[in-house]
Amino acid sequence: MTKKPYYLGIDLGASSVKTGVVSTEKNLKATFVGDTAGKDAKGVLKAIFTSVRQVIAKADMTLDDIAAIGVASPGPLDLKAGIIYDSPNIRGWRNIPLPKLLSEEFSLPALLENDANAAALGEYHHNPDPQLRVLAMYTLGTGIGGGIVIDGKALHGAQGNAAELGHIIVEPDGRQCACGQRGCVEAYSSATSTAARAAQALQQGCESSLSQVEGTLTAKDVADHARQGDALAIKIIDQSAYYLALLSVNVWHVIDPQKIVLGGGLALAGNVLLDPVRKHFQRLCWKMQGAGGVQIVLASLGNQAGMIGAASAAALAFGR
Amino acid sequence: MTKKPYYLGIDLGASSVKTGVVSTEKNLKATFVGDTAGKDAKGVLKAIFTSVRQVIAKADMTLDDIAAIGVASPGPLDLKAGIIYDSPNIRGWRNIPLPKLLSEEFSLPALLENDANAAALGEYHHNPDPQLRVLAMYTLGTGIGGGIVIDGKALHGAQGNAAELGHIIVEPDGRQCACGQRGCVEAYSSATSTAARAAQALQQGCESSLSQVEGTLTAKDVADHARQGDALAIKIIDQSAYYLALLSVNVWHVIDPQKIVLGGGLALAGNVLLDPVRKHFQRLCWKMQGAGGVQIVLASLGNQAGMIGAASAAALAFGR
Repeated sequence: MTKKPYYLGIDLGASSVKTGVVSTEKNLKATFVGDTAGKDAKGVLKAIFTSVRQVIAKADMTLDDIAAIGVASPGPLDLKAGIIYDSPNIRGWRNIPLPKLLSEEFSLPALLENDANAAALGEYHHNPDPQLRVLAMYTLGTGIGGGIVIDGKALHGAQGNAAELGHIIVEPDGRQCACGQRGCVEAYSSATSTAARAAQALQQGCESSLSQVEGTLTAKDVADHARQGDALAIKIIDQSAYYLALLSVNVWHVIDPQKIVLGGGLALAGNVLLDPVRKHFQRLCWKMQGAGGVQIVLASLGNQAGMIGAASAAALAFGR
Repeated sequence: MTKKPYYLGIDLGASSVKTGVVSTEKNLKATFVGDTAGKDAKGVLKAIFTSVRQVIAKADMTLDDIAAIGVASPGPLDLKAGIIYDSPNIRGWRNIPLPKLLSEEFSLPALLENDANAAALGEYHHNPDPQLRVLAMYTLGTGIGGGIVIDGKALHGAQGNAAELGHIIVEPDGRQCACGQRGCVEAYSSATSTAARAAQALQQGCESSLSQVEGTLTAKDVADHARQGDALAIKIIDQSAYYLALLSVNVWHVIDPQKIVLGGGLALAGNVLLDPVRKHFQRLCWKMQGAGGVQIVLASLGNQAGMIGAASAAALAFGR
């Protein structure tokens, strides 16, 4: 039997499914994006299966060229059993054993990975630095997802709950988080919380060019106005950056990563976010040995990190 | 060649060196405590070599029965190179390659491990639960040392700086820590900081039975008076416990341990510390999936954990 040289990565998002074919040399051969918005569980499953067939056709391959499938999904998940317990975005989605269903449909091995872990795996395995051994990633979106990769593997912890980095408490008795805790970094520095803090400041009467934005304020609005020099927008982004820096000091002291990667919607703000995160990190962190050894950077794979990382997870588990 | 069934663990402390012989079945066969107080680097090295010979004699063995030596030491260290850079307690101790010197003296393989990691390894490998996979430990002494064990191995991170859990920031812009950061858990909940906060409260005129203590107040005094019902002592211990619980929430969200072990001098306070740590942890941590899966417990090996864990580290590295 010849070695099959390709892996399939599937990233199940809130309103779409992204599927890609990745070679063992880590080249992305083809991608396909299927729409899942408004579909129920049955419709989403059908869209996932269709996307697999479409992307393989697009890559001019057959199922015989594929070694295994990796699926990235938001939680709650049972990673070991390969079950997606629930989805806030898909009607009727309860306890779906997606890897098992994919295996049955396509006669291929398949596994499940948390979406932020998958993104971290993507950033790790597609990083050209051969010295890279430990990486942490934050995906700054509706919430904050966390991923940790050590020696090439995602850190899952004893019960699959490791790397929930959005729920590190950075402000004791601080803002209420959706998880039930208070003062989680997610309650300050996610894209959603960043926009919410700006909207709150406007309501309290702060002067800002943001008051001219029509419709619901987004994190992109805040970043754009900060870039244009609006004082309130700069202050709001600086607070998000401050708490991400505090998170990074704490993550650094637990796992000692070489790289901390900022991804997700808010990271699209670019240097207007990255510069103050780095500045606060240097200020907050001890000056003893080691602090210079961690780099804070923007994600390099954009919104393909989860899909590519899902293929990496499959290659790690099933590759020979 | 027959397999050598014993490992030597050496714990280099502030004023003593503890040496033990541990069997592959994890039984402690003999221990020897050598005095190093006031000695210079040369004197301490001699005391270490003597302690090795003494403990082997005490165990009625020869060097031929020993497979390897593990050394636990406080930092700063270079774990890979096996060098102890510096010691605040030993005059003239600079860049000492202790494992190499032990290897040359006794013709045995030897390695270096951070003292808190060694204690965590001891608690992990001498735990009877076969399901245990992830453990974190805090040693609450002059400072707070941290150790993390995942799948039997100490987590070292990219540069050997992982598990510096005493320097997790639990109070932004809080008390000054000796490391240069502000608000580290070490600045609140170490044995030294607990005693210092009590002394400070007394100076500020708080009423307490602690005011009758003669000489310098210790964490043991605070714990004893808390146990006897003194309101200030109870409050001071409760604050130490609160910050240890906050630390534990954060550590839990990074590595998802099954067990968090409290060791070191302050842990000798027992339930008067453990009960409020558990209470605050339950209050601070999210109520979603998993939080019930982590147990917070007192150390079981007492002040032998570092020595026993150093032997475990040697067995892991050199065992067959």
